[in-house]
Formats: sequence, C-alpha cells, structure tokens
Amino acid sequence: MRLSRSFLPTLKENPAEAQIVSHRLMLRAGLIRQTASGIYAWLPAGLKVLRNISQIVREEQDRVDAQEVLMPTLQSADLWRRSGRYDAYGPEMLRIQDRHKRELLYGPTNEEMVTDLFGQTVKSYKDLPQVLYHIQWKFRDEMRPRFGVMRGREFLMKDAYSFDVDYASAVATYRRMMLAYLRTFQRLGVRAVPMRADTGPIGGELSHEFLILAPTGESGVFYDAALEDQDWLDEPVDTNSPEALEAFFTRVTTPYAATDEMHDATAWEAVPEAQRREGRGVEVGHIFYFGTKYTESMGVSVSGADGAQFFPEMGSYGIGVSRLAGAIIEACHDDNGIIWPDSVAPFRAVILNLKSGDELCDAVCEQIYSKAPEDFLYDDRAERAGVKFADADLMGHPWQIVVGPRSAKEGRVELKRRATGERQELSVDEALALVLAG
Amino acid sequence: MRLSRSFLPTLKENPAEAQIVSHRLMLRAGLIRQTASGIYAWLPAGLKVLRNISQIVREEQDRVDAQEVLMPTLQSADLWRRSGRYDAYGPEMLRIQDRHKRELLYGPTNEEMVTDLFGQTVKSYKDLPQVLYHIQWKFRDEMRPRFGVMRGREFLMKDAYSFDVDYASAVATYRRMMLAYLRTFQRLGVRAVPMRADTGPIGGELSHEFLILAPTGESGVFYDAALEDQDWLDEPVDTNSPEALEAFFTRVTTPYAATDEMHDATAWEAVPEAQRREGRGVEVGHIFYFGTKYTESMGVSVSGADGAQFFPEMGSYGIGVSRLAGAIIEACHDDNGIIWPDSVAPFRAVILNLKSGDELCDAVCEQIYSKAPEDFLYDDRAERAGVKFADADLMGHPWQIVVGPRSAKEGRVELKRRATGERQELSVDEALALVLAG
Repeated sequence: MRLSRSFLPTLKENPAEAQIVSHRLMLRAGLIRQTASGIYAWLPAGLKVLRNISQIVREEQDRVDAQEVLMPTLQSADLWRRSGRYDAYGPEMLRIQDRHKRELLYGPTNEEMVTDLFGQTVKSYKDLPQVLYHIQWKFRDEMRPRFGVMRGREFLMKDAYSFDVDYASAVATYRRMMLAYLRTFQRLGVRAVPMRADTGPIGGELSHEFLILAPTGESGVFYDAALEDQDWLDEPVDTNSPEALEAFFTRVTTPYAATDEMHDATAWEAVPEAQRREGRGVEVGHIFYFGTKYTESMGVSVSGADGAQFFPEMGSYGIGVSRLAGAIIEACHDDNGIIWPDSVAPFRAVILNLKSGDELCDAVCEQIYSKAPEDFLYDDRAERAGVKFADADLMGHPWQIVVGPRSAKEGRVELKRRATGERQELSVDEALALVLAG
Repeated sequence: MRLSRSFLPTLKENPAEAQIVSHRLMLRAGLIRQTASGIYAWLPAGLKVLRNISQIVREEQDRVDAQEVLMPTLQSADLWRRSGRYDAYGPEMLRIQDRHKRELLYGPTNEEMVTDLFGQTVKSYKDLPQVLYHIQWKFRDEMRPRFGVMRGREFLMKDAYSFDVDYASAVATYRRMMLAYLRTFQRLGVRAVPMRADTGPIGGELSHEFLILAPTGESGVFYDAALEDQDWLDEPVDTNSPEALEAFFTRVTTPYAATDEMHDATAWEAVPEAQRREGRGVEVGHIFYFGTKYTESMGVSVSGADGAQFFPEMGSYGIGVSRLAGAIIEACHDDNGIIWPDSVAPFRAVILNLKSGDELCDAVCEQIYSKAPEDFLYDDRAERAGVKFADADLMGHPWQIVVGPRSAKEGRVELKRRATGERQELSVDEALALVLAG
C-alpha cells in the first residue's frame, strides 16, 4: 500500500484525552478514532490488527475442535428472562425497545443464546462434547469508559461455550481450552499468565484469568518465573487423553500465580526469591466452568445413554479481541511508538523513500515494492526523512527498509529491525529475503 | 470436517414459518436459525458462506483502491442531528438511550459517520479521491421482517463512500465502482443486472440498483439479453482513464434495463423481441452519487488547489452481504436443495461414505479425507445412504465423492457434480484432481 494514497493518519501530538500509552499510541498511529464515548471506528491499520488477532484466535479455537458460528448482536429480553438474568443484570446491559415495544438488548455475553441454540439442535449425548464459539461485537454500558479500546463500550470478543456429558468430560474440555489459550497468546507475541479466579457459588478450581504483564495493568500480579518459559506451540499434549490433559494442567497450575485479589502472602514466601515476578497485569482472557447453571435454568436437556434426560455441563471461554490490540501495545512499545509482534503487525515492513522525487531512490523503492507481498507499506510521501523515520517507529512496523540516495547508488538499502534497533546494509534482494523469511 | 462431530443440523421437513425457497433451504440446510423476529444466528455452514461472500466483495473493493475500515454498530444521535436526518428518519431507525440518557442509534447506514471521520482526517484536495468502505452489521427495524435474511432486521452490509474533488472525478469513481460491482457479482456466480434507479432531488443518471434474477424477487425487471453475456473479470478497462471508464459505462447502460418502477413501455418495444428478458429481480446492490449533500450539511470541507475551502463530492455504494446468501439460493437451487456456486459454497466437496462401519469404505474415505483440503466435508455418520444423498443435495456442495462397497473394492469412487447431476466413476486420485482443479 502506498502511504500517500492511504487512510493512515498519524498524529504528531499526544491527544489530551488519552491517559495510557496504548490509547495514545493507537490514536497517534492512526489505528482508531473515537466516534462516541467508549465507541471507536477502526481505521485501515487498526482493522488489520484486529483481523490478525482474530485469525490467530480462530485457528487455535479450531485446532481444539471448537466450531465457529456467528450469533447476532441484539438479543431478545425473553431469552434472558428464561435464565433469570434479565432483571439481575446491572446498568451495564444496554436495554432497547423496538418499534413494536418489544424488549431487546445489545448482547454483553451469549450464554443464554448459545444454550438455546444448542438445545434446539442437539438432542442426544452422542453428539457431545460440543464447543461453539463466535467472534462478535458486544456492548457493555460502562459507567466511565476510558483507556481507549481497553475499556470501551462496544468491543469485539471471542466467546466459546462448551457442552459436555459429565464433570470429567467438562474438565477435559476446560483443560484443552487452557492449552488453546496459552498457544493463542504466545502466537500473538505476548506472555499471558493464567491465574486462579473466583468461582463464586460454583466453587472448585476451574476459573482462570489470563493476564498480560504491562505497567498500566489494572491488577497487581504475583507469579513464579517458571510460567514465563514454556513454549506451548510445539508441546505435544495429546488433547484426546484426559491423563495427558491432567498432567498439562498440573504443570501450568502448580507454580504460584495470583492477582492481588487472590494473593496468598504465605504461599508467595515459599517461592524462591530469584523466581518471584511481581508487577501489573491486563486481563485478556477468562475461562470458566459453571456446570449446569444455564442448561438447568433454561430447561435444556439431552437424552443420555440410559435414555433418561440430563442437563449438559457447560463452561465459557472469553478472549477480548479488541482489548488485545491495546494490551499488546501496553506490553510492546518504547518511547518512539509501537513495536508490533510480527504476527499482529498491520504491515510486515515499510519501505522508506528518504528522497521521494529523486530518480534513483524512486526506482529502487518501486523495484522493491513491485516484488513485495501485500503487507508491505511504501512511504512514498513528499516528506522529510525525519518525519518518515518518526512515523515508521510510531506505527511499529517490524521491519524498515530504508532507501537513501547514497546507498541506492550502490544498489543497497539499510534494513532496520524495529524491536532491536539493529541495522544492516544489504542488497535489495538480501533485504527482501530476510524480511520474507522472518 | 467430519459431519458426525459438526454443528450442521439439517431438517427433513419444511419449516412452516418460511414462505420463500431461500428461507426454507437456509433453515433446512442448517445455515441459520432465527433468534428473534428478523434476527438470525449463523451456524457454521452459513458463516462460511457469509465469509466467502465478504471476501470476494472485499477483494473487488480493494482492486479499485477502496480502503477498508470498520465503523461501530452504534452511533451518536448528535452525528445525525448535524446532517438533519435524525428527526427525518422513520421508525426503521432503532433509537437507544444509554445509562446516562444519551441518545444512540443502531446504524442503518453510515453517511454521517464516514463524513465526520473523513473530515477529521483529510484536509487537502491532494488527498482526494478517497473511497472508504466497511463490512459491518446494521439494523433496520422493519415493520414486518420476513423472507429470512432477505428482509431481516440485523443484516450485514458492505457500504462504501467516496470523496472527490469535483463532479468529473466523482463520475469516474462511480463508474469504477460499477465495474467492481459487475466483477463482484460475477465472481459470486450470479448475474446481477444494473438498472437505473430514482435519484430523487439529486437528479442525473448516477443511481443504479443491481438485481439478481429470481422468481421470488420483489421487483419486476425488463432488460436486454445483451447484458447477460459480458465477462467482466478479464475485461481490460483502464480504471485510471476517464475515457475508458466512460466507454465502459456507455456499454453497460445503453442496452435497455429497468425495474417496473422505472419501466418505459415505448423504449421496451424498441428492443428486438428475441432479446427481451422479463422476470423478477432481487436487489443486492445499489450505487448512488449524491454530490455535496452530506459534506455541506455537516460542514466538512477541504482546501483546494487555489487555497479556498470546498465541499468534496460524495457517492455511496452498498452490497447486501447477508441478503446475498439468500439471493444466491433464490437463483441457484432445484427441488432437492441448494446448488452453491463454487466460489460461495461452505464446503467444496462432500465425501459420502455409503456404508460407515464397513472396513473398506471407511478406509477409502479416510484416505480421501487425509488428502483433502480444509473445505471438504466427510459424511461419516451412521446413516442410511438415502439420508446422506438427500442431505448432500440439500446442502448443495458442488461435488459429491461417493464411496460405496462395490466400487471401493476396485479402488474407485463415483464423482457427482451437483449443478449438472453428471456422474463419473474414477480412481480416488482422479476424483481428487478433478475436484481440486475445479
């Protein structure tokens, strides 16, 4: 994409309304614009980020046999009356009346709808387990929306819902999803540490939040460094084996990890001092087992092997997709701007023409651009080199291919890696090969 | 995907609530389920269709340099007060109050928001033309929602908006978009004929609806058969040349084409009888030039070459993405079910195991399945052959790979093309090669 013809507006100044770094950088790098309190439009670069995150989330959900559907944003109040939550839900629920005075709401979550959908379709234990998920916009009418997309009102979320024949099967599903989450966050280029969360009246140990470490996080976190080191992508966990899943779960949940809400000072003392990690964390995911709460209250049963009807056991599994765009920036930036992980970056590389209009520089840039895949950005604007360098750092492209008049004469370019600042002079082909390989 | 483990529920009976064929087939083939009046959940196969359509629409928008953004579903009423449309818009607009009693609405369209977004960002004629589009859910509170997704309340639409320096440039943009639309519909496997539509107070000839021929269409249509024959995909129109665009536009708009609203019986008589095509049409797209209506009313100007401020000329360009899922079925079905065009089909092929549990049949099916790409469905259910044949025809997969005990013994399968009914006996490798090539 040629920057001169693109809708990628960067801002030089820090917007006054933005209190945290990700919000400032998302506005300055032209990723989002606010259209109403807590509601944002995603500009081309921001949408690419959102789509890259969604696609990784989707692939890892599919890998554990979750099936993607798409439920609507608006729901009938009657559905929520069946579970008893319509009156119980607070003012965060956006309640709506249509032209016939029927009550609707903008879905803040989908337990009721998915349980109903499941009940219409699945009639026998033979069709279990089922995991359904969707990636859809939701609305929570926050009292004081702030921090940009980190606490917006209209937000994009992946929410999955599982249906199992019994507790043992539900536990296996829960553990499978925990593995999917660890893989997802790792592919997104961040470390998210699972921490025990409150299970309320359900009880048990099957509720975990996933937190990304970031100085502006909303919770204090305490965890054992052992949790940072594991590579889950190639980990050969046999997800069909309950025993293998149990061993995996034990490994993940044995080292100490807790938010300040659940912190246990005595247990923390037992962690060797060199292993203690303490900081702030942003919640980006939550997995939760809640048994038959919705199947029972909504009267959704299926027939068992013995012919008798029973209520399937459920869990829900959320990832804040739009929130992650902000959370990744919280974790990946420096004073000059965003440092996108390769997997999430809106553009893999930018071609910086330091002297647009110079015949040789233009020719070398066009040559690179003609060979480049679609996710290359070409900064062909008639701007000073300093502006282009600053914008490239601000927007956080993983690679910068710098074409200046001196090196161009020798058919060479400078390749800069944004994350490390490392620079090397290379031929055009060498630079391209490096970028495409990485 | 293995059908036995999939959320792909087919129905044997015609649902009583469905009056038209696409609605019946979408319910029966397990593409959608209604969750409230005029509001639908998309099940896995339906979502794949929606995504395939969206992707083709996206590629053809990108090809004419439109840039994708994503505007939110909810909008501030204040935005619509600026254009003067808030009070003028009828009861189709879903009006909402948030917890602070601020007025919001669920966007039925986005002229106001995109004009505001453009105005915040673009300041000079040098940055024109700009075309911004998004593919987003919208809501129109229809009095009587019906015909499934063809006239739903929550619907997915691609809407693009163009900004040009003057009328001549706006005309070129309009014609470029018309070409993009013809290519889009052709790739979707349907013929959509552009027909002049009312321009209201704007006047001129720059408003066209695109209609797909279907017996249950809402409008009568009359057109010259010449419009059916052109292949637009390889048509070398130089979209940077206003002259080439004009020649293209003349070719498309010269042959007679009109809906019953705009029908001119005298002009129709002049079309040679053999060339006359008369029937019903479903509107799936609309392109419309409206000049400075929104830039002026909302006070959005940019600086011109002479330094003076001016109001950019605008047009809007819609495609009903969720409606197309229904419209394509209206155009592509027979008594047995859907006949998906290859480009839209949720699954490219189904493997029909006529004797699940038979060692040889299972082995041949597994062999094919292991070599198949992700968009193959494997009907591994313990069902009678008749049920599997009927479901395959109903769901409309372009290819059926039939594995029965007799042919399996000889290492052969029967390959059926859904659209023609043509069958041939082939080796496994021959059948796979044919399916993957087509």
